[in-house]
Amino acid sequence: MPVMSNVREPAGWPPALETRLTRLLRIRYPIIQAGMVWTAGSKLAVAVSGAGGLGVLGAGSMNPDLLREQVNKVRAGTTAPFAVNVPLSRADAVELLRAAVETEVNIFITSAGPPAVHTGWLKERGCVVLHVVASVKHARKAVEAGCDAVVAEGYEAGGHNGLDELTTLTLVPQVREAVEVPIVAAGGIADGRGIAAALALGADGVQVGTRFAATIESSAHQAYKEAVVSATDTGTLLALRGLVPTRMLKTAFALQAAEAERRGASRQELETLFGEKRERKGIFEGNLEEGALEAGQGAGLVREILPAGEVVRLMMNQYYSVKRSMP
Amino acid sequence: MPVMSNVREPAGWPPALETRLTRLLRIRYPIIQAGMVWTAGSKLAVAVSGAGGLGVLGAGSMNPDLLREQVNKVRAGTTAPFAVNVPLSRADAVELLRAAVETEVNIFITSAGPPAVHTGWLKERGCVVLHVVASVKHARKAVEAGCDAVVAEGYEAGGHNGLDELTTLTLVPQVREAVEVPIVAAGGIADGRGIAAALALGADGVQVGTRFAATIESSAHQAYKEAVVSATDTGTLLALRGLVPTRMLKTAFALQAAEAERRGASRQELETLFGEKRERKGIFEGNLEEGALEAGQGAGLVREILPAGEVVRLMMNQYYSVKRSMP
Repeated sequence: MPVMSNVREPAGWPPALETRLTRLLRIRYPIIQAGMVWTAGSKLAVAVSGAGGLGVLGAGSMNPDLLREQVNKVRAGTTAPFAVNVPLSRADAVELLRAAVETEVNIFITSAGPPAVHTGWLKERGCVVLHVVASVKHARKAVEAGCDAVVAEGYEAGGHNGLDELTTLTLVPQVREAVEVPIVAAGGIADGRGIAAALALGADGVQVGTRFAATIESSAHQAYKEAVVSATDTGTLLALRGLVPTRMLKTAFALQAAEAERRGASRQELETLFGEKRERKGIFEGNLEEGALEAGQGAGLVREILPAGEVVRLMMNQYYSVKRSMP
Repeated sequence: MPVMSNVREPAGWPPALETRLTRLLRIRYPIIQAGMVWTAGSKLAVAVSGAGGLGVLGAGSMNPDLLREQVNKVRAGTTAPFAVNVPLSRADAVELLRAAVETEVNIFITSAGPPAVHTGWLKERGCVVLHVVASVKHARKAVEAGCDAVVAEGYEAGGHNGLDELTTLTLVPQVREAVEVPIVAAGGIADGRGIAAALALGADGVQVGTRFAATIESSAHQAYKEAVVSATDTGTLLALRGLVPTRMLKTAFALQAAEAERRGASRQELETLFGEKRERKGIFEGNLEEGALEAGQGAGLVREILPAGEVVRLMMNQYYSVKRSMP
């Protein structure tokens, strides 16, 4: 595993912030970049890990071969720790996990499925496993399955969402009281104020999606990034509750999906409406009309498209400044 | 206006926490008790104001005569500042505001209606006016109307809710960037961790509902208070979006309302289903089957029914402790 001295640390960078999460992952700052589909490729992971956060490859939009290739590209770009995110709902989740293990990935973030199935053998191979949860019950299950940490993700998060609609503000302290492992707060965190709030609530670090989706190194389409920057506070909605609750920018498709929900559309109707490749179309191809442009409520806090490493630096500087100014 | 020395301050109480909000309201701690229907009467207001927070009478379930009576009872119980909450959606909102002004109430929290109509004449009479908002646009409107502060209330809040579903975590910093006046964070705040998170996000104080609804001095029925204490993280839901979005405990009625929504019930169907006096039935009469038991996601953080003053003390002690332990 890479050591801390490999991490980039030019003059002007904020001091390391040590928490249980940074010790677990051997990173400098308690910031995990979310492993978003069509967005989180090797360039983004290299930039975030190189800046002292945890870069993450989003295997949800990769096949095993592409994942192997992407892992090798991250290795070529940085010696710092990085992770792979695998949505367990994928039919080929096992193949993705195997491909990553074979290329000696040793930090995993799993989501959208039962952690009991795969955590055991990943742990046997010496991996660190984090699992994404949206309720106290699922946090307990992740810990029982042997996970090293949980990502507690609230209703404000972009993309696929839990059914219980707990917000980050109320989810994190309740998960804190329920489990002993480190907690990563996710959903609605886009700057240093969010980090400070998350740590105050009992988290040991944060996972940041939308802000990183709109960076230079993100694989998302330029039009998607600009749509995130243009989004105001009310720029996203959660729809498709009857299929899989999904938060996205208010595109024509998103409004259509919300309208279908309001009139009580069946699961089958929603499936037909959603069709195929909506996410690819929106995020990767930049189709602002027909695409599903997954993004969180944090979009309203994103003001410009910056290099991802600069985002890490700014967030940490702001964290220290916020902490100092608290009354 | 009462002076600080009137405020109760026995040994063992945490130090005053000065913010722009406490200076505006002349209170010791930046904690406002929400003016909840069937819950926030004179006993609760006396207890909270007496402990150094801002007690608030909830005029939403009072007629003007009862409001006058309740104001006099608060005066008999404390010399500390207190406020009256008036939902502007009430047909007799003007009468309620007049009754309060006539009894020399000088702090108002208005909600659920356009602030432009009444803020002017309240300000002319020397009153301090706070307005509840759920988006940046409405925060700007409140400031344009002359409000002294805004209460930024997120999706996790109990009772009536905004249409845009912004969570407290993402709403507060965006309102902070949009307006200059003091901001009160509301929704999901039930302890000192929530206060610390709110202040980190840029708020000048917090409004706390559900935690105070489950105190000894709350006018809510004992069965309601116990239901709040029993609630887990997933104990509430938001329903009646097509009528007025309302967060409540998952009673039989609440589940019925959510089901109606899922099948696309019309506004009229929802009105018929809601019927009359659901809130009174649930909160005041303790009917756990048929009542609407309005409560926020913070219910999962409420563990016992305490005196409201003790809640203020515990929250502030926890705030200081959380702040000290931030890395």
